[in-house]
Amino acid sequence: MSAEERVVAGVQPVIEALGREGRVDRVLMARSAGGATHRVRDAARARGVRVDTVSKDELSKRYGSDRHQGVIAIVEPGAATLSEVEELVDLADARGEAPLILILDGIQDPQNLGAILRSAHALGAHGVVLPKHRSAQITASVVKASAGAALHVPVCRTTNIKHALDRLQPLGVWSAAAVAEGSPADKSRLDGPLALVIGSEGEGVKPTVARRCDHQVAIPQLAEFDSLNASVAAGILLYEVQRQRRSAAPS
Amino acid sequence: MSAEERVVAGVQPVIEALGREGRVDRVLMARSAGGATHRVRDAARARGVRVDTVSKDELSKRYGSDRHQGVIAIVEPGAATLSEVEELVDLADARGEAPLILILDGIQDPQNLGAILRSAHALGAHGVVLPKHRSAQITASVVKASAGAALHVPVCRTTNIKHALDRLQPLGVWSAAAVAEGSPADKSRLDGPLALVIGSEGEGVKPTVARRCDHQVAIPQLAEFDSLNASVAAGILLYEVQRQRRSAAPS
Repeated sequence: MSAEERVVAGVQPVIEALGREGRVDRVLMARSAGGATHRVRDAARARGVRVDTVSKDELSKRYGSDRHQGVIAIVEPGAATLSEVEELVDLADARGEAPLILILDGIQDPQNLGAILRSAHALGAHGVVLPKHRSAQITASVVKASAGAALHVPVCRTTNIKHALDRLQPLGVWSAAAVAEGSPADKSRLDGPLALVIGSEGEGVKPTVARRCDHQVAIPQLAEFDSLNASVAAGILLYEVQRQRRSAAPS
Repeated sequence: MSAEERVVAGVQPVIEALGREGRVDRVLMARSAGGATHRVRDAARARGVRVDTVSKDELSKRYGSDRHQGVIAIVEPGAATLSEVEELVDLADARGEAPLILILDGIQDPQNLGAILRSAHALGAHGVVLPKHRSAQITASVVKASAGAALHVPVCRTTNIKHALDRLQPLGVWSAAAVAEGSPADKSRLDGPLALVIGSEGEGVKPTVARRCDHQVAIPQLAEFDSLNASVAAGILLYEVQRQRRSAAPS
């Protein structure tokens, strides 16, 4: 167990960790675990978290006690997982900066998610919104791929991206979806309070989500080709936003 | 064997393929292969290409004949591998564009190399210069990570990056190294003929290479952090070059 891991034990605490914390790496379950553990299995499956079956002794050793009800979760600590998108806006306000929020519409690859979190941190995003379903979640391999940035970037998990956008709009946050047929990013005004929506590797931003956004932006490309890697596209657009903010600011 | 593979057979042809083509995925060698095959093993090791030992029958089956001298190479076809950096400048001239050449100073990770080749193709680089040693090479997994772009981007392999820069300079190509302490990329003139040097994941651009470059540029970052993923940094800088070229061009 690395210094950064911690362990949550017991059926209900593990289910809560899977539901809230967003940093569960793995669930370990005793071969002899009782009936309530199917709820743990369901919760882990819903999050795409691996469940390994081990001996009761192994569990006791990992937890440091035998009071674990036959199930423990290995949890990566990290930046708080927020439950409300409004909290990301509060974070920006507290820094005296215009909010810059990255919304990820279904990124599947842990390497991509890690690289995106690294860019989000380095390029000054105040937080990342991640769907609870059909999306990579923040696991140990994502933390690793992010070079540790996942431990610093606030993440807000949502069941519905459109609802998140609906709640950001009255706070003065504009939204821009990255889509192939959008306007060139460098010709679009992106220097205000902004939620930037990046789509999944295969599908891009869902059309219903893209239509809901105030702007549709594209990275001008010179070859007719299957677009850019999702993490490269996210990095370029975050760079472009900060470039515009620097240009707009009095020097 | 996929439709995109082809097979080279015989000791000398395989050694030549390893030396020149830059697309050798794997070498297969018969258990009973003769004495000259240690030269093949040396050449494969120098390129970081895997050598698998198989039966003579398996080789004959893969090659479609038994005239293989006990060794075959599985080669990914692709864009020509060029031996002279001048040829990349010729390619740009032929398109009536200012050369934009990406020089990779020791990228190690095949996923990163693939993503960089994808960006190079999508964002209009005329070619990529890759060191022959201490660098990921173009293998099947790189082609896959590039979403196929590796089959389109001309690659020039060199033993020495500084020599490549020395040969580009008299052709009017400026050089810019991406280094943490460089000038902000968006405040640097990058719209002319340019060779952009990106460093390895851990070490960045080697100081002796960076000093040899006309410019040192950085991507402004807002968090003190372990920089960006190498493929994201390459994508951002290629984007910035093309953004400046669009701004400079009469609209």
